[in-house]
Amino acid sequence: MHQLPKVPATEVENRINKFQKTLQQFELDGALITQNVDIYYLTGSMQNGVLFVPASGQPRFYVKKSVSRAEVEASVPVEAMGRIKELGKKIQSRFGQVKKIGIEMDVLPYGLAIRYLSMFPDGEPVDISFPLRLQRAVKSDYELEQLRVAASRVNEIVALLPEIIRPGMSEAELAAKIEYKLHLHGNPGIYRMRGYNQELSLGVVASGSAAATPTYFDGPAGGLGLTTASPQGASHETIAAGEPILVDISMVNEGYIVDQTRIAVIGELDQELESAYELTRKILKEAETMGKPGVPWKFLYARALEMVEEAGLTEHFMGYGQDRAKFLGHGVGLEFDELPVLATAFDQPLETGMVIAIEPKFTFPGRGVVGIENTYLVTENGLEPITFASEELIRIPAG
Amino acid sequence: MHQLPKVPATEVENRINKFQKTLQQFELDGALITQNVDIYYLTGSMQNGVLFVPASGQPRFYVKKSVSRAEVEASVPVEAMGRIKELGKKIQSRFGQVKKIGIEMDVLPYGLAIRYLSMFPDGEPVDISFPLRLQRAVKSDYELEQLRVAASRVNEIVALLPEIIRPGMSEAELAAKIEYKLHLHGNPGIYRMRGYNQELSLGVVASGSAAATPTYFDGPAGGLGLTTASPQGASHETIAAGEPILVDISMVNEGYIVDQTRIAVIGELDQELESAYELTRKILKEAETMGKPGVPWKFLYARALEMVEEAGLTEHFMGYGQDRAKFLGHGVGLEFDELPVLATAFDQPLETGMVIAIEPKFTFPGRGVVGIENTYLVTENGLEPITFASEELIRIPAG
Repeated sequence: MHQLPKVPATEVENRINKFQKTLQQFELDGALITQNVDIYYLTGSMQNGVLFVPASGQPRFYVKKSVSRAEVEASVPVEAMGRIKELGKKIQSRFGQVKKIGIEMDVLPYGLAIRYLSMFPDGEPVDISFPLRLQRAVKSDYELEQLRVAASRVNEIVALLPEIIRPGMSEAELAAKIEYKLHLHGNPGIYRMRGYNQELSLGVVASGSAAATPTYFDGPAGGLGLTTASPQGASHETIAAGEPILVDISMVNEGYIVDQTRIAVIGELDQELESAYELTRKILKEAETMGKPGVPWKFLYARALEMVEEAGLTEHFMGYGQDRAKFLGHGVGLEFDELPVLATAFDQPLETGMVIAIEPKFTFPGRGVVGIENTYLVTENGLEPITFASEELIRIPAG
Repeated sequence: MHQLPKVPATEVENRINKFQKTLQQFELDGALITQNVDIYYLTGSMQNGVLFVPASGQPRFYVKKSVSRAEVEASVPVEAMGRIKELGKKIQSRFGQVKKIGIEMDVLPYGLAIRYLSMFPDGEPVDISFPLRLQRAVKSDYELEQLRVAASRVNEIVALLPEIIRPGMSEAELAAKIEYKLHLHGNPGIYRMRGYNQELSLGVVASGSAAATPTYFDGPAGGLGLTTASPQGASHETIAAGEPILVDISMVNEGYIVDQTRIAVIGELDQELESAYELTRKILKEAETMGKPGVPWKFLYARALEMVEEAGLTEHFMGYGQDRAKFLGHGVGLEFDELPVLATAFDQPLETGMVIAIEPKFTFPGRGVVGIENTYLVTENGLEPITFASEELIRIPAG
């Protein structure tokens, strides 16, 4: 069938074992996993189907398409799915009656959930998404390796920026050139997001007032975008000297996403914006020290808010005014919007092995966005950077 | 805020009026529209929020982010959304008690649906997706104009293929070069799909045996892909002389997607594959004549199956063996997987103004995929092509 690298079988086995402990803890008979990314995480294959994970014993991947490809890729047993009615019978004859069943309530569409749940007439659905996402937040050595390769690719892009960026080019042209280089490195161009209606293309490559345009995207920088039908990120606006050029880009390697932001400027940056940029670097350093196992996620956000308030920049932090995003960072991995979320509502503690993109940014309407972002690994000694491009402003001669 | 082109206000008004007729026909008090594409279609804005459309009277767009941007883009009244509890009160104090409510059951996640429905304690949910998608299937002059611009961009790519394709380049490199050119034309790189777990990056640019690798994607050609985490489309395999190079690409303009497939070959194509390609052209011509208002969608697929069976190629049609897709074409518009679907289960009639991508293809395992695809408009005289690149095999000298 094919010779593509596979997720190691031991990796899949460890993931299933850990997930089954959660199922036991929640006193579930099993979980019906339906989302492509969760299925990939728990089987090693992203073929189309559903995965039944019993509280103990071997899971089974019921595949619609392609069965033959799933057989090659998955490290769990594969069977043709058939119709939903038949599937219910297959599952219960193999695994017994299912009374309490985990489903992914944050992603599984309502209509499909009703149909799947009809397979278990006495089954009570329980939302299993948060615990599964919490498990996925802690990365294995295999996963870290994939992220480190992705980080080296975005570093290469930053090194090339001085020769790519030219006054008078459009944001879209700059974004296209960056994406082209990432594609040649094997970036598939799909940046998976779990959040309903959230989507991302490359990231936010934008400058000046266009970068400061607010938008629907739940992040600290929006961007004007190309059209009202794609209202975020790069636009057709021209990049001019003296304005901050936001290069917030992602690279995907073997499914794993890293996220990194750097700022470039043609000529000189306005002193106020440069000071704000320096403050984002300080916020990042503070987070690096604070980010140890056991520290609640919300503490890093709270500390950043303190530093921003001291500087009198609260209205500009993570967007402007009403359009501010209310977080400092987000987990990355197979999805762009993973746990942890560094935000007020989250009391959960950081754990060794979690991977977080931390992205303090300031928006100045009409002038631009400045900020920085690294993807980090949580270790006993604090946050260890996975992305490693130079954090200095990238200065491009005006002439 | 910004000067981007807007969806004309009369366009939005017509769409709302038509949708309200459906709500009345279904005896609904209103519909709560939550999906970004449906919201864009019915308001002109893709900002994050929910749209309440009463059975009659003015709809209201409750926006989370960005309210200020939605006010500029939307042609319906905008209000800050607030928390879900407050939203329920706001809606019922403005629109009265809601007893029967339309929701998009095919896309709205289960957990979110439960929360939204809790706003209407006596409300009975009804799936409004299919009728809304049916309405969206029929395009206005404004929408056709956007599609025609997109078609001219994919035509330009086909014209460039003889100078882009070189023996020994990888599929990924070819895909990257094509995508780069489309990006410069304003392609945002997001190809929206409505189907759960379905996703697309550019299309399928693949050759030889890699193109014939089956995958999860619900289409006639899969492709090996770059990794098991992105198992479709272009791979790192090398393009060799004598094998069919499938260039199945999409371009998005103002949110509207066209889909087109052409085949290139370096040197000479195997006679059996070339004959199969000629048969796909004949199937397309037959569909062009048959595709008139009133004809059931399934008839076009049934006729194609007949022609394929006469040629003894049934096992190869729209994928191979167990991995065949069971349709001939699909609607395109703001989403890649719109109505109509030309498949056995669909008795619905074609209507003037529907736009369909028709894509007969044959898969030969180990050898490649051949086929053709145009995006068409349904007219009284049959299907009128919107994509218009030459349908001849693109022959590239081997030396």
